[in-house]
Amino acid sequence: MAYLDHAATTPMLPEALDAYVAAAGMIGNPSSLHAAGRTARRLVEESRERIAAVLGARPSEVIFTSGGTESDNLATKGIYWARRAAEPGRTRVAASAVEHHAVLDSVEWLGAHEGADVDWLPVETSGRATPAALAELLDERGDDVAVVSVQWANNEVGTIQPIHELAALAAESGVPLHTDAVQAVGQVPVDFAASGVAALTVTGHKLGGPVGVGALLLGRDVACTPLLHGGGQERDVRSGTLDTPGVVAFAVAVEAAAKRQPEYAARVAALRDDLVSRVRAAVPDAVYNGAASDRLPGNAHFSFPGCEGDALLLLLDAQGIACSTGSACSAGVAQPSHVLLAMGADDDRARSSLRFTLGHTSTADDVDALLTALPGAVERARRATAWKTPR
Amino acid sequence: MAYLDHAATTPMLPEALDAYVAAAGMIGNPSSLHAAGRTARRLVEESRERIAAVLGARPSEVIFTSGGTESDNLATKGIYWARRAAEPGRTRVAASAVEHHAVLDSVEWLGAHEGADVDWLPVETSGRATPAALAELLDERGDDVAVVSVQWANNEVGTIQPIHELAALAAESGVPLHTDAVQAVGQVPVDFAASGVAALTVTGHKLGGPVGVGALLLGRDVACTPLLHGGGQERDVRSGTLDTPGVVAFAVAVEAAAKRQPEYAARVAALRDDLVSRVRAAVPDAVYNGAASDRLPGNAHFSFPGCEGDALLLLLDAQGIACSTGSACSAGVAQPSHVLLAMGADDDRARSSLRFTLGHTSTADDVDALLTALPGAVERARRATAWKTPR
Repeated sequence: MAYLDHAATTPMLPEALDAYVAAAGMIGNPSSLHAAGRTARRLVEESRERIAAVLGARPSEVIFTSGGTESDNLATKGIYWARRAAEPGRTRVAASAVEHHAVLDSVEWLGAHEGADVDWLPVETSGRATPAALAELLDERGDDVAVVSVQWANNEVGTIQPIHELAALAAESGVPLHTDAVQAVGQVPVDFAASGVAALTVTGHKLGGPVGVGALLLGRDVACTPLLHGGGQERDVRSGTLDTPGVVAFAVAVEAAAKRQPEYAARVAALRDDLVSRVRAAVPDAVYNGAASDRLPGNAHFSFPGCEGDALLLLLDAQGIACSTGSACSAGVAQPSHVLLAMGADDDRARSSLRFTLGHTSTADDVDALLTALPGAVERARRATAWKTPR
Repeated sequence: MAYLDHAATTPMLPEALDAYVAAAGMIGNPSSLHAAGRTARRLVEESRERIAAVLGARPSEVIFTSGGTESDNLATKGIYWARRAAEPGRTRVAASAVEHHAVLDSVEWLGAHEGADVDWLPVETSGRATPAALAELLDERGDDVAVVSVQWANNEVGTIQPIHELAALAAESGVPLHTDAVQAVGQVPVDFAASGVAALTVTGHKLGGPVGVGALLLGRDVACTPLLHGGGQERDVRSGTLDTPGVVAFAVAVEAAAKRQPEYAARVAALRDDLVSRVRAAVPDAVYNGAASDRLPGNAHFSFPGCEGDALLLLLDAQGIACSTGSACSAGVAQPSHVLLAMGADDDRARSSLRFTLGHTSTADDVDALLTALPGAVERARRATAWKTPR
């Protein structure tokens, strides 16, 4: 199989799995006071320090969670609640139009359920959120905004956002900015303190760690109402028994991903560039979506005119190629991607798109396998579509 | 080490860890459409079926979460929100006074943050919640109640609640009852459908599965607003990438725990009864807290007059005995247990208590080790306390 869907989930690093197994063989709840509990606590705290060190955070700023979705929900809802409680006039929440559903749907829930006023920040055709749009919002309504959320890099088209610039604007207005960086850590340099953001989401299974473990990096002075109440773990922001083996494995993966990032990015971007030029040669009318530069090294995203993305995905799957349409697909009903639509694509272009994402196990053979299968698959997909809807 | 703190966390079963490792060696997000994703999805769905089968639920009623705290928060807040949205007059939430903090603090948050009216159901001196108290509340205010939460068994003193009777009363009034059964599954027979509850919390690390994975069993017709929004996984009630290895390992552990429950309970209760009679012989004025019958097989809970529980815990720890005060301890400040206080204990008795909990790895040697260390530790703890506060 040629696995070209690393943005969905990437294989666990052997050293992370080894660390999981070693820690799972020990016993003790990190909240327990006895020696076994203190040993577990030490493993958790060492992991916290390792993560903090490579991501430019203080250890106390690392809040362990169950992953990206929880961190995104905690940041958007929790900071919104806390800020609104402190200053009842702050009833607005803003996010880019190309956020992952974990932010998108949290923000929509704040609008529908909590009566928040929601502002969606527009993006350029490359998928890039413009600082000018945020500046305008903050100029006009800065005193009303409780929280802003803009991803570090887009999960579908790989566009890297001007997060430092956006964070600086938000900070000038005293508005906390959260960024979903699950696609960025390990792919591009990520430094929490230097970025100026108030909160940052990272998760294990996008960078070689376990599924079900992640973190919210949360600035010491950023108030955040908990989503999960209980035992008071994690600065009282996130209760729940700490997953010692998961946290240890996560830390091993974060450290490895961050340290290897420069060589990883160079190697994977070279593979990706080869993939892109060969896809363009094989399918000359394919549209390359997203940014030319400021793009995740492993991401390639195309629209194939005249194809249904889902049909193409399944034709490639039959040839042993694993990729993604890049759009959420609930209950078998394909929706055109909100990311592509926000970038100005029409419905047809959005529906005809496929995402190929490379990762730490990718090789030239994977690219070769794709290029062997793609021309025939595109041809078949076009015939199927032509039969369904003449264009 | 004699580990007598299985109620805090119990070692992962070797077969559960093996299942984790095997699944972690595969790749694929269960939400992906390609073959790797479909394989992961099949593993998750088979796990769901295994759990449902041994817990008396339908597969679609198993909602995977990050564990007990999340399931408790989801059930109390989510059912409250959904019920109040459907019938705005239902603004009350009731729970027993001896709930775990994950329910207790969620309910308090509903009161403080969402304007809910909170009713705490009293318990007898054994820790047992009386059906009469719930019946009275439902008679007087049944039309105002959105959700009731009563644990299946208490985590500190091991008292088993009359959950079938409570669930029947709630059902008669059309009020959904949630039960936190994290301490019960594997210890006593638990059948979701037969119990009549609307929602039930179970978690991996209390029964030989991994930390960070659990489930909420949620009746098909019970509306529940999500805590975590996003990709729409788990009937749209709980978004987040499904943790395939964790779920597979959790299912192995739940199945093993449920199937072995009768022989496990007989073996562990015999050990526990031996522990109790020997502690009573060694420390004649020790007070055995909780119920005589209707008690978890592995739980023994004592107050040692004239001792500080924390001091005794550390003295035993120095002798290689791991146990718990059974009270939450945040930031090093010991609070007297709300469970003991609700059972009518005074502050001194609550502060002088220790919990010993046996589990699947417990042996007679563990009990011997405790009894070797306990008399000297009690004597030292009494001297320390006498010095601090003359009684």
